[in-house]
Amino acid sequence: MDLAITNTLALTMRDDRLGMLEDATIAVDDGEIAFVGPADEFSGDPERTIDGDGLVTMPGLVNVHAHTGLTLLRGGAQDVPEIEWMNRALGPLSAAMAPADHVAGARLGVLEAVRSGVTTVGEYARDVGRLVEEAYEPTGVRVVATETINAVDGPTDDLGPDEPYPLDEAQGRSALERNEALFDAYADHERVSCLYGPQALDMVPPGLLEEIRDRAAEHDRGIHMHVAQGGREQRQIEARYGADETTVSVLEDLGLVSDQLLAAHLHGATRDERAHLADAGVRMAANPSSIAAIDGVTPPIAEYREHGGVAGIGTDQAPGPGGHDFLRELRTTALLAKTKRTDPTAFPAWEALRVGTIEGARALGIDDRVGSLEAGKRADVVLLDLKHPSTAPIVSEPLHTAVPNIVYGANAGVVDTVLVDGEVVLEDDAVRTVDEREILETANERASDVFARAAETWRDANSELVDRVEDGWL
Amino acid sequence: MDLAITNTLALTMRDDRLGMLEDATIAVDDGEIAFVGPADEFSGDPERTIDGDGLVTMPGLVNVHAHTGLTLLRGGAQDVPEIEWMNRALGPLSAAMAPADHVAGARLGVLEAVRSGVTTVGEYARDVGRLVEEAYEPTGVRVVATETINAVDGPTDDLGPDEPYPLDEAQGRSALERNEALFDAYADHERVSCLYGPQALDMVPPGLLEEIRDRAAEHDRGIHMHVAQGGREQRQIEARYGADETTVSVLEDLGLVSDQLLAAHLHGATRDERAHLADAGVRMAANPSSIAAIDGVTPPIAEYREHGGVAGIGTDQAPGPGGHDFLRELRTTALLAKTKRTDPTAFPAWEALRVGTIEGARALGIDDRVGSLEAGKRADVVLLDLKHPSTAPIVSEPLHTAVPNIVYGANAGVVDTVLVDGEVVLEDDAVRTVDEREILETANERASDVFARAAETWRDANSELVDRVEDGWL
Repeated sequence: MDLAITNTLALTMRDDRLGMLEDATIAVDDGEIAFVGPADEFSGDPERTIDGDGLVTMPGLVNVHAHTGLTLLRGGAQDVPEIEWMNRALGPLSAAMAPADHVAGARLGVLEAVRSGVTTVGEYARDVGRLVEEAYEPTGVRVVATETINAVDGPTDDLGPDEPYPLDEAQGRSALERNEALFDAYADHERVSCLYGPQALDMVPPGLLEEIRDRAAEHDRGIHMHVAQGGREQRQIEARYGADETTVSVLEDLGLVSDQLLAAHLHGATRDERAHLADAGVRMAANPSSIAAIDGVTPPIAEYREHGGVAGIGTDQAPGPGGHDFLRELRTTALLAKTKRTDPTAFPAWEALRVGTIEGARALGIDDRVGSLEAGKRADVVLLDLKHPSTAPIVSEPLHTAVPNIVYGANAGVVDTVLVDGEVVLEDDAVRTVDEREILETANERASDVFARAAETWRDANSELVDRVEDGWL
Repeated sequence: MDLAITNTLALTMRDDRLGMLEDATIAVDDGEIAFVGPADEFSGDPERTIDGDGLVTMPGLVNVHAHTGLTLLRGGAQDVPEIEWMNRALGPLSAAMAPADHVAGARLGVLEAVRSGVTTVGEYARDVGRLVEEAYEPTGVRVVATETINAVDGPTDDLGPDEPYPLDEAQGRSALERNEALFDAYADHERVSCLYGPQALDMVPPGLLEEIRDRAAEHDRGIHMHVAQGGREQRQIEARYGADETTVSVLEDLGLVSDQLLAAHLHGATRDERAHLADAGVRMAANPSSIAAIDGVTPPIAEYREHGGVAGIGTDQAPGPGGHDFLRELRTTALLAKTKRTDPTAFPAWEALRVGTIEGARALGIDDRVGSLEAGKRADVVLLDLKHPSTAPIVSEPLHTAVPNIVYGANAGVVDTVLVDGEVVLEDDAVRTVDEREILETANERASDVFARAAETWRDANSELVDRVEDGWL
């Protein structure tokens, strides 16, 4: 027995509730949870004991959708009209990034995620294997890696909104082969699993989508795709597939609407379409801060769960919403859901904790291995010290204030210990696996260079931010 | 010269912009800002120098509206219908609090505020003088103290929504005299100033309101009042003043609509009424997280500023929104404003920074003394270290990413140093003025007792939370 956490308030997430256990013992052996239960039923002889008195122990948080490679561009694209964000604000900056800049960004983003209690990230990137090798593996964070498959041939800024993007099937196929290689490389890896990543319906030709569908079905693999992202996408779909079509109707025709699909966003679909997707087993990745910041829209995660759909939460990318702090994202998800419905009971704290853990694991298709504290699962465990200015006081009668205080109160400072696959990643306010100072310095240096290289193009693209700089606001 | 901060990126908030200065020196003497400008124009000989290289230096954040005394009840009342929050969820708990519990809560709330960069709080409480003495003065945080004047006689839970609350003028008058005593006690205090606090139009008889109005006019003092809080209040106003009246119309008749009024909330007013209030110089205190959590509503701060009104941000109380982290509140304000309007350009980062500092100071009527970095103002100064996992990287070309990254990225961990009135309150990750551990322990002990004393009444009140506890969710 490697480790036991004793005397802790455990939120195990078992049995469709929070699975709350007071004075619990949680034991870990060889990366696996070996015991969860009352102290007097535990008989192991652990090499190490963590006194969990006063701490809350829960499954590590699961961020289902993130492009951490863009973390280097934090602060580069926000507070602009939705139509400008991608091409006129973010685009000139991301075009100036070298592969190593994406790595530096991912290392920073993963660091921020871990510090907020995250143990799994659903990473989505081109050449995602490099981020896995150089950011996730060294940090020791679990990753569900999705290789971006995008067939759009060249820049699209000069096209009108109703001109379909030119697609290059060979380019898409080459990305699909990278994706296949990823599955091969990580077939038996304990902390890395993979998904297919066709970026979006307007960016991949239908033949290639059908091939991905068939491969996914054959090998029982998942597909992670941006679906129904709003007006720009819908105009592309009509231009390519006809005025009566929507993203969801075309995906249905292509046979992609199934429980193999993890669909990010969905705010551009209708309520009926979402009900249909939920019914068909499609899983949802909601990115509340990102879609609020970039589109001014609240993603319909509360609605999707009411349809019976499985849903998790993601932080998307740093430019726009600001970063990968997942504790903060739980709170933001709840407050946005409440104001969207004018209903303070929408997305309550206990729902946020389940969606942030076991439901997120279900969304990523890894709930057989993580997402709850149960013997036999991998030991992805977070300890929170709620005797902290942002969460104290904690009482257990007549209700457990730990539940709302983690969601509405906590900042990342409460994260006391993070274990992934049984290994300590964070402890005593220090990330044990990587050199945090070096990550921050490298990020600053590389970002200065990227922004400097991009400066002229960025100014020429003339987003509203350029005016704000001239006005002395930025 | 006591202190100089050198080589820093200063956000001074001067001149209707952010007043950004690179490589700035800021000098403090005898609690006052003595110099703000480029290093080569500075000739003082400071006793102490803080190397501000890599840090952002800005005015301390100004929280315009908070009931920090309720921080002991964090986690006790949220995720319930609006109609239940006050009487069935919070009420049984707050009724069990002794005065010392409010003090313990305020000490915790002020601690949390300071850790998020706050240097001024607009505190609103019954017997607020005790909180000033026992929480604000020891911590060294500036406070604009408002004594609650409430004439509601006895519990109101048994009344129908259209039965006006019984008001006891003598009770209200006694509170007004406490309020007057406060003005006398702190007439010449450097860090404490005062406002009149008639709680709300439905809770104070009109004659007493007129008297408060006259006293405020005579002494040029401000009035801090909850205004247009929504449906419950509107029904009370109609019951007392007639079916054609609204809170704003009655306040107008009573002569309270003037630049002496600081009005909290305003979401229950119409757009035209708000335009009128803004035009009349009424200042607004918006509490986005609180109103989102408790009412499921986004306060109209972006709209109020478009009407030309002065507005600041407050954190209200911990039960509901979760606490007094003001950096987080800036981000929440921006994201809620964007989704309310489906407009990602609403309430941009630079607006958040001004509203969180100089505009908040204007809302509280203390902008002649704080809210910007200018020679002659009191030295309320915050240094942020943005080389942090939540804010890095920071670049200065072609735009200053510090601005968005403080608002959208930063958590309280970036707060490096806090000076109030020239004195160090926080430094090297430690609050220097109070014993943080003792505050947390006292809060935990007292909260356990309060919740235990309240448990039976809380269960009998039977809010939806009681069912959730029985269901195993809390």
